[in-house]
Formats: sequence, structure tokens, C-alpha cells
Amino acid sequence: MNAPLRIALAGLGTVGAGVIRLIEENGAMITERAGRAIEVVSVAARDRTSDRGIDLSAYTWADKLSDLAADANVDTVVEMIGGSDGPALDLAKTSLSAGKSFVTANKAMIAHHGMELAELAERNKVAVKYEAAVAGGIPVIKGLREGASANRIERVYGILNGTCNYILTTMEKHGSDFDAVLKDAQELGYAEADPSFDIDGVDAAHKLAILASLSFGKVLDFEGVETSGIRNIMAADIGQAKALGYRIRLLGMARLDDGKLFQRVNPYLVPENHPLAHIDGSTNAVVAEGNFSGRLMFQGAGAGDGPTASAVVADLIDIARGDHGTVFAMPANQMKKIGRAESGNRTGKSYIRFLVTDKPGVLAEITAAMRDADVSIESLIQTQKTIEGSVLISMVTHQAMERDVVQSLEKLASSNSLQAAPVVMHLLSDED
Amino acid sequence: MNAPLRIALAGLGTVGAGVIRLIEENGAMITERAGRAIEVVSVAARDRTSDRGIDLSAYTWADKLSDLAADANVDTVVEMIGGSDGPALDLAKTSLSAGKSFVTANKAMIAHHGMELAELAERNKVAVKYEAAVAGGIPVIKGLREGASANRIERVYGILNGTCNYILTTMEKHGSDFDAVLKDAQELGYAEADPSFDIDGVDAAHKLAILASLSFGKVLDFEGVETSGIRNIMAADIGQAKALGYRIRLLGMARLDDGKLFQRVNPYLVPENHPLAHIDGSTNAVVAEGNFSGRLMFQGAGAGDGPTASAVVADLIDIARGDHGTVFAMPANQMKKIGRAESGNRTGKSYIRFLVTDKPGVLAEITAAMRDADVSIESLIQTQKTIEGSVLISMVTHQAMERDVVQSLEKLASSNSLQAAPVVMHLLSDED
Repeated sequence: MNAPLRIALAGLGTVGAGVIRLIEENGAMITERAGRAIEVVSVAARDRTSDRGIDLSAYTWADKLSDLAADANVDTVVEMIGGSDGPALDLAKTSLSAGKSFVTANKAMIAHHGMELAELAERNKVAVKYEAAVAGGIPVIKGLREGASANRIERVYGILNGTCNYILTTMEKHGSDFDAVLKDAQELGYAEADPSFDIDGVDAAHKLAILASLSFGKVLDFEGVETSGIRNIMAADIGQAKALGYRIRLLGMARLDDGKLFQRVNPYLVPENHPLAHIDGSTNAVVAEGNFSGRLMFQGAGAGDGPTASAVVADLIDIARGDHGTVFAMPANQMKKIGRAESGNRTGKSYIRFLVTDKPGVLAEITAAMRDADVSIESLIQTQKTIEGSVLISMVTHQAMERDVVQSLEKLASSNSLQAAPVVMHLLSDED
Repeated sequence: MNAPLRIALAGLGTVGAGVIRLIEENGAMITERAGRAIEVVSVAARDRTSDRGIDLSAYTWADKLSDLAADANVDTVVEMIGGSDGPALDLAKTSLSAGKSFVTANKAMIAHHGMELAELAERNKVAVKYEAAVAGGIPVIKGLREGASANRIERVYGILNGTCNYILTTMEKHGSDFDAVLKDAQELGYAEADPSFDIDGVDAAHKLAILASLSFGKVLDFEGVETSGIRNIMAADIGQAKALGYRIRLLGMARLDDGKLFQRVNPYLVPENHPLAHIDGSTNAVVAEGNFSGRLMFQGAGAGDGPTASAVVADLIDIARGDHGTVFAMPANQMKKIGRAESGNRTGKSYIRFLVTDKPGVLAEITAAMRDADVSIESLIQTQKTIEGSVLISMVTHQAMERDVVQSLEKLASSNSLQAAPVVMHLLSDED
């Protein structure tokens, strides 16, 4: 039998504890598959005494994180601390510099510092692996880096945040409004006490930037993701979308536009015959469209200690097998930085919803602003009384430049007929 | 730049030509990703003159297949000939014995001879790769062998034959009968002139046996797959299923039952809220349920020259990167052969459809036979006049042992009320 792969584990929250539980429960099978055992040798966590439901007595406790990286008995460091910078990033750098491979579920750190870590890893001839950073237990990093590697990926997109998808599909199912569903989700543990990271799209943007870099082989550019979330979506929007044959999903969407990188996180209207329209609850799904493979979709649980541990240990098995190669699609020092595509240049149909004062002339004001910006209206779906004195107006535009849509809404910004900023969502099409 | 990976290609049908087209179109990108070029050096095909839409003048033509395996300029042989035995198998063996890695899309050969080829490859320290053998361009072999490798897979199942799914979902959409849709499918090129390999479930059984071996780490056992197809499914069955909230799909299903291997290809009634119920047309989808990952699903095009070439070249990129490891989930000589689980011991609900003579007492005869075999009926869905003198009776049983269902139908086998053998389909549930 070959020597075991000896790992150190930093962070023993539910996910860190899940990794230990998985290695204990499936250990014999993992040894058969990897050709060697995966052995936890040391751990570090702030609190040594809390009950995590697992027996930690066999492991050495490190006094500080840097001890894990310095330990000559450790081959690979697993980071389950979180946070884009601070201790997690320090640990990554000291581990790689010490010649140890590094496995993480930390999407924020990879989104912000992935390129730097990749170069450091490749210089030191060790691995950085992060399957768990995107879409939990779904092997989509591997699917893109290896499975679809023969393809020029036309676009990559998907449902990357389970909390948002849970909220949107629960609103869809029960006709409830955002605030009520968020509150329930918080009580059920599906949403954080401070939910902004999820519902404002930041978490999805981290993941999208990683997927885009892998898909297109270009330098990761998190700052280039146009990001918005789901706070402003009303039950009425979901109903209108449904009447048109669409479901509302928060999507991350990335593609190359004339050699420039377009990346956006935004709620989209997804046609009912598209597979993403059937992804309900907290499930994640990633679609990659390759020039030979056609449309591939990967779906599964996007979070949770079990799925995350599954992905972390799959990375460890790859390292144990000696199959790890480059961190992204190609060596980091050969990846090119490319410009950002402007969303204003894009053409498509948009759903726009206004919440306006119930008085004469409002519709004329809105439609005139659209006309003046060269945006023509395909359908004015419905006007609906919502609360005393307010009316909802929602419409779908014909194909229009996004710049023109923005301009039409700017014209209305100073109108005292609008009771809230208009909500704009794009209709997902094959050209997006 | 590293030395190129030099390949020989045997078979230049649409799929073989697709591999060449992909390497030409995406070559520069592949070189960046693989860290070296993938270069076709020689080809072999029966006909040297037919127009394949690609320029083959740069390649050496081999007079016979064994020349490819013997060529010192060739690192890896790609087999696109087909057939479980004969020239394809000879080429596999001579290539591996000559120390060359081997890539194939040949599901029949892997299903019948995969273990032998794996042992030969591992003795010679070369790779056998076959991503294209199951579900076309979907990286499901990699997904199971690597992506889900940390999991004890509870069951693996899916839609593995695009022709059958095309036929069933077209019947579903238009209410048409099997024969008419098959004829259309043949005219459109979605079904072969001799369609039996597809519609009788053999092709799906090849793929299922491969998936089962990868998922459970046991010796591949194609002969152990209980196989039936879709010839007997009527439009009325699809209508009845729909009324119950189900869609009919031909599934391959494998799981471990008390340490024994259960493998079956059979039409199933899939609940509408299951993701497989939304897989339409010739799309394939594979579900793997892991003890930590939960339910993972991979979907995409299951056939066609583009998707197949995508999978073949992904295998070549892995070989070029030096990341290939064992052929199955673990070294072939360590995989254990296990017994076959009897389907009769399984418990579940079944849909049973009878085509009977329209005369008094038939229903009493059927229900008595069921009662005598301890099969109780949950719902008798509908009786419907089909053609002069014939009536359709369909029912769903309560939870029952499959053995008892078979026994109840055996009791009826000699009845002169039945105009055709009853059709039995199982209801997919979480316990299947």
C-alpha cells in the first residue's frame, strides 16, 4: 500500500466537521479508489471544546494556523475558515509556499485571489483545488476544466445561489412576497441572519467569475461582474412572467462578446422549456454550451455540509491519485487578461415593471419615454391594482439595445409618477 | 513547448471525422489547455475516397489496423469503428500491448470486454478511456470516476438512449403511437433502419453496466442487466401515466441491494417532480445519488458527431496532461465480482396495462388473479375502448413484491381474455 495522503484541516464548522465525517464513514472505499488512504493528521479551530458530533481525539490540535502549513507531517492543507482575505488567505499562501497542496471551498478567496494563488501553486508544483467553491457537490469545476475541455465554450450560466433560488421558487409556488419568504427562509436556516451576500448576488458573482475564467481560459475578473439581486422582485412579477411562459431565476451569465468578457448576475426570465426553469428549491445548476458538446447541464445540491464535503474530498482523491494539473483551464501565467464587454451594447428583450401612482397620463408618460429612447414595446402585459393608489405596469420590449432601455428609464427617473425604481429583467434566449 | 501527443484514428465515419474536425477547429485552444498539441499522425478506414468534408491529405493512411498499433510515431490510438468484438477489439488489444493508450466511444466493447482491457492497460501502464461510450458529450464517466469519487453511490440511473427518449417524448407530445413515431424517427435519422439495438434496450444496458461498475467499484457485469425496451408502449399508456402525474421514460437503473448488484433497463413511470421527467427529445441524463453529495444530475446530448468528438478529445486532453489513472473507479485487478440481486425480491408500485377482449367477467378474472398473488390494487385508472372488441385496462398496484406481480400475471397467461401480454412498468420512487 502506498503512503497515505496526510491532511491538515483548518476550520471545524459544520463543513469542516463534514469533511472529517466523510473521511471516517467512506474511508475504506476512498483508500481503494485513491490507491492510498487519506488521513487527517492535524486540525485547527478557534474553539476546541464545542460538540461537533465527531470524535477529534485522534488529531493533533495546532495552536495557530501557520503551524499546519509548517508541519512536516502534512502533505495537503484543507481550508474551511472562509473570508476572502485574512487568515484563510494567509494560510493559503504559507501552505503553497511550503510546498503543500491546498484545498478550499472558499469562493470569495478564489474569486479575489485565485490568479495569485494559482501562480504560487504552479511555481511550487503543488495543487490548489476548489471544487466545493462553486455549486457545492456538483463536479462542475472538473466538468469545465476537464470534461468540456475540448470545446470552445460559447457561454456558461446557471443558478449559482441556492438561497435565492429557494426564495424565488417558494414565491412562485405560494404567490408570497419576498419579505415573507425571506423571513421563513431565515427561520428554516436556508438564509443567513444577514442575507445580503446571497440575495444581492455577491455570492453568485464570486462563483460566476470562477466559472467564466475556467470556461474561457482568461484571467479571472470578479470586479467585472455586473451584479444585482432579488430584493425588488414582487410576487406580481413572478405571476406576470408565468403568464408569458417564463420563470424568474437569478442567473449568473458569462460569455465572450467579440473577444471581451461579459459577466452578469441578474434575475432573468427563463422560458419554461429551458432546463433551468425546472430547477426548484435550493438546487444549483450550471449550463455550459460548447461548440462541439452542445448544451451540457450539471445539477445538484449547491450547499450543505454533505455536498461540500463530497467536493472537498473528491479534490483530495485527485491529489492522492496524482491527477491535478493546472489550477484553472491552463497555466496561470499563460492566461490573458481581456477587456470587459459593455452590457449596453447587448441586444435582447427585457421585462420592465413599474410601480406607479394611479392617476391619468402615467402610461402615456412611460410609453413616450420608451419611444424617445427607441425602445418599442412588444406587450404591455397587465395593469393591476396593488395597494391603495398604486398600480403595477409590466411590459416586455421588442429586441432592443440595453443602453436604450437604460436611457428610457433615466428619462423617467425624475418623474413623480413612479413610486419605486423600475425593475428590469432580461429574457433568457439562445443569443444571450 | 512539450512534444505533441500523436494519435492514430481508426474509423472515419461521421464520428471519426468529427474528431478530426474538432482537433482542427479547436486545436490552438487545446494546445494551451493540454500544455501540448494533439496531432493526428495516421488514419485508417475502409474507404479512402469518400468525401467526409475534411481534408485528410496530411495524414498517413495505414493499410491495416494493426499498423496503427505498431507505428512508433503513435502515442495513442483512437478507435471509432464500433462492434463489441472483431477488428475493434483486436485493435484495442494490440494497441495496449504495444504500450499505447487507447480511446474509444465503443460502449459494446467496454461493456463486454472492459475488465480485460483495463487489466491489460494497467499492466502496460497506459490508459483506456471511454467518456464518449456513455451519454455522448456529457462528462459522466469522469463525473462518477472522479467528481463523485468520495461518495458511496446509493444508486445510479438515467435516460441512456436518445432514440428511445425521442420516441417516448414525441408520443407524449402528439399522442401518437409507437410505430408511427419510430417510422418518422427513422426518416429523420434519429433511429436506425434496424432499430432493435436501441428500442429493445441493449444500447442502454451497455451503458448502464459501465455506469454501475464505475459507481460501485465492482466488476462490470453486462450479462446481469435485466433488459426490456419500449416496443409495447402505447399512446394510451402515456396518457394514463400522465393522468397519474407521471411521464414514461426508458431508464437504466442500478443499485446495490444487500451487497448484490441490481441492474435493469425498463420503461419507468417517473414522477413529474423528478428532474428526469423534464428530459425531452434525444437528450440523455444520468442521476447519481451519493451518501454525501445527494442527488447529482448530468444532462446533455447523448449522441451525434459533435458531442461524441467532444468526449473523445476530452479523453485525449487528459492523456496529454498525464492525468488518467485507473480505467474504472479503482485498479481492475482489485475489483470484486458480486452476485446479482433478484428483481423478484424488490418491492414497489407497478403500473400494469392489459389489452383484453370486451366481454363480461374479464375484470373479475384479472382482479382475482392479482388477489390470489397478494397484489393489491391502488387504483384502476381507466378502461377505454381502443379498437373494435378490445378494451384497455390499466392499474397501479400498492407496494408489492415484484415476484408476486409476475406470479399474478403468470396466472393470467393462459386466459383467452387477454389479447396481448400485459405491460408492466415500475413507478420510480426514492426507494427504487
